[in-house]
Amino acid sequence: MNQVLTFGEMLMRLKTPGYSRILQADSFEAAFGGAEMNVAVSLAQFGDAVGCVTKLPQNPLGDAARNTLRRYGVDTSRVLRGGPRLGIYFFEKGTDIRPTNVVYDRAGSAFATAQRSEFDWPALLEGVRCFYFSGITAAVSPELTGALEDALACCKKRKIPVVCDLNYRGKMWTAQQAQPVMDRLMQYVTVCLANDEDFEASLGIRAFDGDMSRGIEQKEQFCEGMREITKRYPSCTTVASVLRNIHSVEDSEWMGILLQNGTFTETAVRKIHVMEGVGGGDAFGAGLMHGLLHEKKPQEVIDFALAASVLKLMIGGDLNLSTEAEVEAVMKKGAGAKLSR
Amino acid sequence: MNQVLTFGEMLMRLKTPGYSRILQADSFEAAFGGAEMNVAVSLAQFGDAVGCVTKLPQNPLGDAARNTLRRYGVDTSRVLRGGPRLGIYFFEKGTDIRPTNVVYDRAGSAFATAQRSEFDWPALLEGVRCFYFSGITAAVSPELTGALEDALACCKKRKIPVVCDLNYRGKMWTAQQAQPVMDRLMQYVTVCLANDEDFEASLGIRAFDGDMSRGIEQKEQFCEGMREITKRYPSCTTVASVLRNIHSVEDSEWMGILLQNGTFTETAVRKIHVMEGVGGGDAFGAGLMHGLLHEKKPQEVIDFALAASVLKLMIGGDLNLSTEAEVEAVMKKGAGAKLSR
Amino acid sequence: MNQVLTFGEMLMRLKTPGYSRILQADSFEAAFGGAEMNVAVSLAQFGDAVGCVTKLPQNPLGDAARNTLRRYGVDTSRVLRGGPRLGIYFFEKGTDIRPTNVVYDRAGSAFATAQRSEFDWPALLEGVRCFYFSGITAAVSPELTGALEDALACCKKRKIPVVCDLNYRGKMWTAQQAQPVMDRLMQYVTVCLANDEDFEASLGIRAFDGDMSRGIEQKEQFCEGMREITKRYPSCTTVASVLRNIHSVEDSEWMGILLQNGTFTETAVRKIHVMEGVGGGDAFGAGLMHGLLHEKKPQEVIDFALAASVLKLMIGGDLNLSTEAEVEAVMKKGAGAKLSR
Amino acid sequence: MNQVLTFGEMLMRLKTPGYSRILQADSFEAAFGGAEMNVAVSLAQFGDAVGCVTKLPQNPLGDAARNTLRRYGVDTSRVLRGGPRLGIYFFEKGTDIRPTNVVYDRAGSAFATAQRSEFDWPALLEGVRCFYFSGITAAVSPELTGALEDALACCKKRKIPVVCDLNYRGKMWTAQQAQPVMDRLMQYVTVCLANDEDFEASLGIRAFDGDMSRGIEQKEQFCEGMREITKRYPSCTTVASVLRNIHSVEDSEWMGILLQNGTFTETAVRKIHVMEGVGGGDAFGAGLMHGLLHEKKPQEVIDFALAASVLKLMIGGDLNLSTEAEVEAVMKKGAGAKLSR
Amino acid sequence: MNQVLTFGEMLMRLKTPGYSRILQADSFEAAFGGAEMNVAVSLAQFGDAVGCVTKLPQNPLGDAARNTLRRYGVDTSRVLRGGPRLGIYFFEKGTDIRPTNVVYDRAGSAFATAQRSEFDWPALLEGVRCFYFSGITAAVSPELTGALEDALACCKKRKIPVVCDLNYRGKMWTAQQAQPVMDRLMQYVTVCLANDEDFEASLGIRAFDGDMSRGIEQKEQFCEGMREITKRYPSCTTVASVLRNIHSVEDSEWMGILLQNGTFTETAVRKIHVMEGVGGGDAFGAGLMHGLLHEKKPQEVIDFALAASVLKLMIGGDLNLSTEAEVEAVMKKGAGAKLSR
Amino acid sequence: MNQVLTFGEMLMRLKTPGYSRILQADSFEAAFGGAEMNVAVSLAQFGDAVGCVTKLPQNPLGDAARNTLRRYGVDTSRVLRGGPRLGIYFFEKGTDIRPTNVVYDRAGSAFATAQRSEFDWPALLEGVRCFYFSGITAAVSPELTGALEDALACCKKRKIPVVCDLNYRGKMWTAQQAQPVMDRLMQYVTVCLANDEDFEASLGIRAFDGDMSRGIEQKEQFCEGMREITKRYPSCTTVASVLRNIHSVEDSEWMGILLQNGTFTETAVRKIHVMEGVGGGDAFGAGLMHGLLHEKKPQEVIDFALAASVLKLMIGGDLNLSTEAEVEAVMKKGAGAKLSR
Repeated sequence: MNQVLTFGEMLMRLKTPGYSRILQADSFEAAFGGAEMNVAVSLAQFGDAVGCVTKLPQNPLGDAARNTLRRYGVDTSRVLRGGPRLGIYFFEKGTDIRPTNVVYDRAGSAFATAQRSEFDWPALLEGVRCFYFSGITAAVSPELTGALEDALACCKKRKIPVVCDLNYRGKMWTAQQAQPVMDRLMQYVTVCLANDEDFEASLGIRAFDGDMSRGIEQKEQFCEGMREITKRYPSCTTVASVLRNIHSVEDSEWMGILLQNGTFTETAVRKIHVMEGVGGGDAFGAGLMHGLLHEKKPQEVIDFALAASVLKLMIGGDLNLSTEAEVEAVMKKGAGAKLSR
Repeated sequence: MNQVLTFGEMLMRLKTPGYSRILQADSFEAAFGGAEMNVAVSLAQFGDAVGCVTKLPQNPLGDAARNTLRRYGVDTSRVLRGGPRLGIYFFEKGTDIRPTNVVYDRAGSAFATAQRSEFDWPALLEGVRCFYFSGITAAVSPELTGALEDALACCKKRKIPVVCDLNYRGKMWTAQQAQPVMDRLMQYVTVCLANDEDFEASLGIRAFDGDMSRGIEQKEQFCEGMREITKRYPSCTTVASVLRNIHSVEDSEWMGILLQNGTFTETAVRKIHVMEGVGGGDAFGAGLMHGLLHEKKPQEVIDFALAASVLKLMIGGDLNLSTEAEVEAVMKKGAGAKLSR
Repeated sequence: MNQVLTFGEMLMRLKTPGYSRILQADSFEAAFGGAEMNVAVSLAQFGDAVGCVTKLPQNPLGDAARNTLRRYGVDTSRVLRGGPRLGIYFFEKGTDIRPTNVVYDRAGSAFATAQRSEFDWPALLEGVRCFYFSGITAAVSPELTGALEDALACCKKRKIPVVCDLNYRGKMWTAQQAQPVMDRLMQYVTVCLANDEDFEASLGIRAFDGDMSRGIEQKEQFCEGMREITKRYPSCTTVASVLRNIHSVEDSEWMGILLQNGTFTETAVRKIHVMEGVGGGDAFGAGLMHGLLHEKKPQEVIDFALAASVLKLMIGGDLNLSTEAEVEAVMKKGAGAKLSR
Repeated sequence: MNQVLTFGEMLMRLKTPGYSRILQADSFEAAFGGAEMNVAVSLAQFGDAVGCVTKLPQNPLGDAARNTLRRYGVDTSRVLRGGPRLGIYFFEKGTDIRPTNVVYDRAGSAFATAQRSEFDWPALLEGVRCFYFSGITAAVSPELTGALEDALACCKKRKIPVVCDLNYRGKMWTAQQAQPVMDRLMQYVTVCLANDEDFEASLGIRAFDGDMSRGIEQKEQFCEGMREITKRYPSCTTVASVLRNIHSVEDSEWMGILLQNGTFTETAVRKIHVMEGVGGGDAFGAGLMHGLLHEKKPQEVIDFALAASVLKLMIGGDLNLSTEAEVEAVMKKGAGAKLSR
Repeated sequence: MNQVLTFGEMLMRLKTPGYSRILQADSFEAAFGGAEMNVAVSLAQFGDAVGCVTKLPQNPLGDAARNTLRRYGVDTSRVLRGGPRLGIYFFEKGTDIRPTNVVYDRAGSAFATAQRSEFDWPALLEGVRCFYFSGITAAVSPELTGALEDALACCKKRKIPVVCDLNYRGKMWTAQQAQPVMDRLMQYVTVCLANDEDFEASLGIRAFDGDMSRGIEQKEQFCEGMREITKRYPSCTTVASVLRNIHSVEDSEWMGILLQNGTFTETAVRKIHVMEGVGGGDAFGAGLMHGLLHEKKPQEVIDFALAASVLKLMIGGDLNLSTEAEVEAVMKKGAGAKLSR
Repeated sequence: MNQVLTFGEMLMRLKTPGYSRILQADSFEAAFGGAEMNVAVSLAQFGDAVGCVTKLPQNPLGDAARNTLRRYGVDTSRVLRGGPRLGIYFFEKGTDIRPTNVVYDRAGSAFATAQRSEFDWPALLEGVRCFYFSGITAAVSPELTGALEDALACCKKRKIPVVCDLNYRGKMWTAQQAQPVMDRLMQYVTVCLANDEDFEASLGIRAFDGDMSRGIEQKEQFCEGMREITKRYPSCTTVASVLRNIHSVEDSEWMGILLQNGTFTETAVRKIHVMEGVGGGDAFGAGLMHGLLHEKKPQEVIDFALAASVLKLMIGGDLNLSTEAEVEAVMKKGAGAKLSR
């Protein structure tokens, strides 16, 4: 099998049409996503074998979520079924000075109420070459934190490398709650993705002052933070970050930095006009893993990851429906300019 | 003020487009409803002053629900705000031999988690001329059953007539759970609406054998059941029922029966082709109350209620957006036939 | 050229989606129609050369209306441009017992405010083989009645046969207003279409008791009325009528009768389930003219006209987008049953 | 009650989907708006008590317009019903170098044909703390100008402050027609909003050279114009203006200036990318009134008004569906940049 | 693995919205289907392991087709990629007397131009428990007929039972062309599905007079035809047929007959109102195979197959998205009548 | 008649909604276009008499294509009908760094399979004042190249000026294939449009280095290339080119150059934000012809052509639905800025 395995929740996303406010909407576009599921789908588009572990309710909404994974080539044979409901989030896309607005309705979901004991990791990790999770899964419930710990211990025993996107979510837990948990989990991590507030909120490392309009200007502090991670967690030999200057909902600059075995590699800064600002981090993670799994050179790894990330921002929905060839085309400057015909 | 006041939950309904299955849908039409809210909206369309008591979350979804009530003329000044989430139900419209499918996602809603003590009935019932609730509210939680008891006791003290639609819902509670609760509440009820399985499941009265394809054939048993209600609950001087023969999702026959002060009045049987089979019972209740409030003659009362009920089945959504004049036109045979131009 | 020429108004029709009520709609489907324009479009689909005289405002809405005529093959070289606005009608499709609801907003339109003197009939009637109008044009304004009289006088001089669909519209004028006007115009008419209330309201001839659920049962009175028309107006050698039993918005029976040179020919009764009940009369008129222009036998003429009429009721919008071959297929029993593949 | 009261027309807006031209459209999105109604709705979203005086036809379109006001929390108890039709405007959204195109179809509306005598101001102004109108209402008809004069005289007697947005509309009247009317009305005004061409067209005061691409460069002349207003109309102690450099349909810079009791206060210049360029001026007016009613400091008043105005340009439709908290967030630089999750 | 394997073409279906004619449409709903793919999807919904062999172009349309199969649980590991284009069919849904209209655009597709030698049957049939094809695959090209022969020979060698739906398509080949081919292929068939014209056009057996409005009346001839098949092709021990009386696009009666090892079993006649008349035969085939694979009793087999078939007619698109439980519910009379809540 | 006549293919364009990827789409917006048809429609909007020669299949899709031409005022009396199918192209609109993606499905179309002998040029060129074709028509098939040669020879005999847009398409033929064909055809051409790669690929003239982000910087080479064309082909007295710097899917700068009788005239550079990047070249060609036909001055001709071209990029679909007045408004700087009301 030799699959990547990701572990996390799948939510239904209900988006108002176009730029409508929730107050105006009388319909919602339905899609499915969730950090770890997004990573799995993106890897599948790149041509990598990938499966996921999650739990979905035994009803047509759960079926629809599962079918989305299948549609995009993710192995769903390890998806648990049962539990009360599918988590939802409502999405109102902002523009320019009007921020995007998300209303979470994920409490009490099948995944959130799953028990640690439901996950039989020795069986689930059979044939797995790499395990991915993000801080969101750790934040959902203590039972799931426990499940994660079981998974990571099992990975350690089998020498399966572990990738963790810190992915701090202030609406799910506080830094005080997050830090001891993430510290415990980081002991097992091989590759860590850390962006913006993640450093401080998840790990208590000061690397970013919180001003999203000038992240790139703080490159040095980011690098220090990244190095600090590798110091604290010796198993973690690779850290990657996205740095951003965000000027409005659409206008921003992005760059990526990779710290691998003590050496930093960075991309050029890309100026972009975002179409839908969701899932860029997950696409970055998938792009990074794809490069690492295929043993590309550091510059290619980080360039590919950043190109995947910004290309995702031009695609609606949570899922990065881009092929490897499409990402590589974006790696070259000016790729969007020409209509081939 | 002199309003009718209804008490219950408002849910967001997410319907697949047309006749799509949930498995096929990538968008949902959003609307709002809930038995007691439907009754309120219908009364407002008939021109009656009406308000409601419910609880909605303090977020844009709660605002949207509240705005729907306002849009259709219901006084929302007594709506509580706060709590975790808005209840949802997913709706897949069936056709012919494919049944309509509803997936409830209402657990943990702002209304379902409201405390008995949040409802200040002496203040809420100020200026109220008639109080309406259905068995659904009683089924939501023990706290709400308590709130209902407080409300009814307060109505009794102020001599406010109470209308109750038994509205048994097998997905919410069992007959064993429902009967003691409903029996307690029925002590306060002036007007009772009882349909099909309600008799037995809510009150333990045998009046219908469960075969929806031949409800009208069981008219005598229904009448006995109705009479039994007035015997058991002396305050309850009026009982109304809808009897149906349902042949497919669309094809059915409907008739209404009214027992008022010991006398039965019944409508003709109407053969209809349903457009969307939701909210017919609530429209019946609103039509009945409208007739009673305006002191129409029994025949007019029950004819109006049944016409309102079947007309609703030709309107999309949970809400009966029909005027009094439109219902009266339907009371006349063949009303749908002619395009006036 | 040798065209049929029709004279009348083109309106924009704004229809709510599906079966939504106007109160629920937040969008409208836009289409264009109007009795005489519908006839022109239908004839063009049958392959007949046809043009029209109307007046449309010099703005993008007027352009869009004109483009619709062009799209479906109607010669628009005689369409006047200018004047205040495009007439509109709002359309809410009913179902079963809920009647279709039309809100007219046609006052003050470019056509309604056109002057008699704007129509240069000697030029407009150049190359015309047949002239068609309906009672609606006569009802719009005295100026247009005058224009019609000019047109008909010019037709008489040039021996151009005149077809008139009486098309009484109670929302536009009263029988008292209509009768003297229509009487004057009928002096010039060669072929008259008269349905239902038209006999009495337009011409003061009693032929139908107003009960739309049993029009076919009154066939004898209809025939007497038709014969009476030929007696009163000797130039009028052909009269055609549609008789209907309408049971609900969708369910009805239709038949057609033709009186030609003193002989009656009738179709079989067709039982149909209407998809959208607009434009059936205009399609009947176009079908009749098509048959007469091609000198078909009376039975073929009336069968074709009725088949065109009922087929139109299965097509959305005002326009009968059916070919001659499609109508002929419907003339055979059971045409709808088989999917050819 | 203590409401703000606004007086003006409500129109139905029919917008083509996306960026479609009217020539391409076969559906329209329906919404409702009108300067004074937009102001009322915006105030209601800010939490202020507000009602309106207008006239709507007694048909489902009028009902739908009224329901929109109710939906967004505006008291509609003073809305007159009756008259011929609802005014309409067709809206084709431009982009970049293609200008937005509006086709008005408002002649002969219920409001435009209302009589001066229909408005019983002593009753209508009961419980009103502030009266708002714009120059559009004055332009509709002499009868409405008369009604406005009656209203303002009544306000004066009751010491109700009057807010007037000059809102000159060249498609409704000429400067020659507007100036004597507006001069008469300005005698009663307490707070005046004047933008761009309003100075000269409405009041004959030269303050802007007509070049929309460099309004901000003409700040001094604007200030002179504002001061001139307070000189001419001593009751008018407050004047506010929006200054703009408009570079394309989307790209522009906006700033606000407030002259209050002789002192000027101005905002920073905001560079924005417009999503839908309608209703910005009305949102500015509502924002200004909100600040003044809550006795904010001048800097806060004008910053809030400008932020409300530019935020509106990121929301579809005529109505500014923003809360006070949302506007306040925009007052801070870079508010749109971050997705909170 | 133990899968069912189906072999055939997947087409993109482009359907006009609602009941629009192609002439009116400015958008199409895209779906994917094709007899053998429909069977595979239906089996997967019933819970059976199933894969397919087909060929899809290496472009995003081919990807989308493949993703549809994956989405609904069909194993696509044996799908060939490459070749010129994806076949398309345009679909205009009729109603009542207006027939459904299909415009095929399938010439030159990736599947139609595939070579016999591309299909490596020994490998493709690894782990297969049952092989399904229909006469459509045989009709596409001589190369594919050859591929089918190779497949069937390989099945014979491995004792894999073969199911064939004769599925005659008059738009693809004539009876003269079909009969020798089908005769050759039938030598290998274990289970044969034969409907209506299939008997005569595919096999030259007279069993049905071509009148679709009275198929059920010809039950005896059908039975004789079925028996004749088993006589001619001794390997074929099971034959199943659907008999129909079709009265209009929507109204029809359906029954099923099964001949198994010499014994006939038939269902009751079901009167239905079709929602979308596509894929009923394929659903029948899938239902039949499901019953046979699970070794149900003959009455259950044919009842399940017919229920699957008529239930499919209530679902939009080519695919029968029904579960086993849903089909079993329909097997009971009156299943569509009740909304469970 | 005195029409312009264009000769080329009409394709159906199926576009995913908004910015959806083909992988995500479950519907397509249908439109029609094709270089030579786009030119014809654009000229008709400018008020010029124009017809076209093409071939469309005799089915509803062919009817719909023909109706689109009629709708927008193009004479379709010379359109041939028949042949296998309508060519299609699928269109996925890119944004920023994600390129627009086109999947062609045009092989085997009615036009592509047309025979040279089907085009009776002496009759088709009756009443024609100017003939237009593009290199696409020449690339479709040798039969069509032959047809073009016949047409041009006939034009020469009748002294009808010929306009050719070189329009090289690398997906249709190679430079090696194109050059001898285009060289032969250019002998007859009066006005030539040459952009970007056209110079080299179609004619073997080096004028542009292929870097679309800096076309304008290569103005001198373009001019040399244009002059070279007039040298090689003495009949060709006029050459026009568009030069572009393309920075992303939306952001670019455009300028036009005209070489007429040895003199160059150029426009200012326009910086634009593209809405839909299709058909700009065809709009340029139509604008150029409009100017030349109306004998405008060179500066007006090239300014009008460029304004038409960039305005088209703000309109969805292939067709430039702009009037002469709208283009002229864009010729003035800042035209998009002001909403006229």
